[in-house]
Amino acid sequence: MKVELATSYGFCFGVKRAIEIAEKHKNSATMGPLIHNQNEIDRLENDYNVGLYKSLEDVKDKQTVIIRTHGIPKNDLKFLRAKDTKVINATCPFVTTPQQIVKKMSKEGYSILIFGDNDHPEVKGVQSYGEDQEDVHIVINPNEIDSIKFKHDKVATIAQTTKKKEKYLEIVNALILKNKEVRVFNTICDATLENQDAAKALSQKVDLMIVIGGKNSSNTKQLHSICIENCKDSYLIENEKDLKPQWFKNKSHCGLTAGASTPDWVIQAVLKYIEKV
Amino acid sequence: MKVELATSYGFCFGVKRAIEIAEKHKNSATMGPLIHNQNEIDRLENDYNVGLYKSLEDVKDKQTVIIRTHGIPKNDLKFLRAKDTKVINATCPFVTTPQQIVKKMSKEGYSILIFGDNDHPEVKGVQSYGEDQEDVHIVINPNEIDSIKFKHDKVATIAQTTKKKEKYLEIVNALILKNKEVRVFNTICDATLENQDAAKALSQKVDLMIVIGGKNSSNTKQLHSICIENCKDSYLIENEKDLKPQWFKNKSHCGLTAGASTPDWVIQAVLKYIEKV
Repeated sequence: MKVELATSYGFCFGVKRAIEIAEKHKNSATMGPLIHNQNEIDRLENDYNVGLYKSLEDVKDKQTVIIRTHGIPKNDLKFLRAKDTKVINATCPFVTTPQQIVKKMSKEGYSILIFGDNDHPEVKGVQSYGEDQEDVHIVINPNEIDSIKFKHDKVATIAQTTKKKEKYLEIVNALILKNKEVRVFNTICDATLENQDAAKALSQKVDLMIVIGGKNSSNTKQLHSICIENCKDSYLIENEKDLKPQWFKNKSHCGLTAGASTPDWVIQAVLKYIEKV
Repeated sequence: MKVELATSYGFCFGVKRAIEIAEKHKNSATMGPLIHNQNEIDRLENDYNVGLYKSLEDVKDKQTVIIRTHGIPKNDLKFLRAKDTKVINATCPFVTTPQQIVKKMSKEGYSILIFGDNDHPEVKGVQSYGEDQEDVHIVINPNEIDSIKFKHDKVATIAQTTKKKEKYLEIVNALILKNKEVRVFNTICDATLENQDAAKALSQKVDLMIVIGGKNSSNTKQLHSICIENCKDSYLIENEKDLKPQWFKNKSHCGLTAGASTPDWVIQAVLKYIEKV
């Protein structure tokens, strides 16, 4: 089987950075899963004894706590810093930016609109930086804008870093038609887009596409949905064990990409497997 | 002939206000034509002796100078105020707003983008309020954005009050894809839109449409282009003398609308003419 890797795939800058931080802090623990990939979390635990706190109450004194790439809510960070723990902030700088924008804009009297998933940890973290929580609104579709009652006639808007720009523009357009001033911050991460553009290009020329990533990772799901648009035989897997031989029947050219949280050693294992099909 | 008037047409708030100001200042003169309608300018001259200055050099001492609805460039206003004249500012408040936005935003370090016609007096006036004239850019189409070299990575944008929102959104979208922060001010005037919406609705149900307005007036031309989309027999006229009997042959239902600078007495004369066709 001929396998072709997308020209851009896998780890982004923020994830690479967070993993390096974790590897440098043996015997530490992360607040929530560091990235959306169980294999990598297992590797960090096995090789570096990096543990995982599921809730704030689990955090023990004298421990080193690593804040994950997605960030955590403002008050959770405050709580950790007040304890007798060492806090290492591995929040991606591209996530810190929208957090600070929300803080600054709500202080300056703007209503806040976040384009993102309500229950995504990044969004929860970013949302928490609003001064007036009742005036921080989260939407996923432009038609939700109509029913929002903004407290101010000026609105600042940011997007979850892993969202699609086209959809963000639709939301921004709905906002502009409703408000006198809309302050648009383009917080969508280019790394995600580079992977998306590469996945789009590759999925247009192959027989099947394999997308490797966590099944809960929103950027991986997005890659998968982009691939399906161009290549109906596109499959989302977490590692080589999820591959099914029947997918490759009567196919000769397989495209391969991976979400922003997929470690390179997982990708290499999948690549080797497919080459032998 | 059955004639139907659009549910909204003619003078907007700013024009009504400017005409009232002119009527209250007999023997004054306006800096540039007060509105885009020669008939109304003639009436003000005949009934109130309101003259017209074509250039700053024409302005005489001791005169009362009325600044027209579109506003004038900042330095021209300064020049007039420094002279021994009485300056009455009839600039529409909806035009003063973008002037002040451009002033404030360029002081705060934003590059400025104006969506409008390069040679329109309103745009020339608004443009003049930018601190750094090299960083005030005027576009009419989204594809012009690509070639602009903004001095800053944050851009503030405003639109000529009489422009279409849909086109403004296209321009804003192109800006957002290129810049980290875009501060969008929706300066498009609702009065214009109300006339446009009413013209659109009416032009969909009549045999022919008559649009009354100055042939240089951009909002009148826009009304005409909206009508043509729905009713190919749409005609732009300045007054009843421009009407041609052959337009009404084999027609039974005539729609009527008028640009924001068309006085009611002109509209009434056209209405009477058509009713008798």
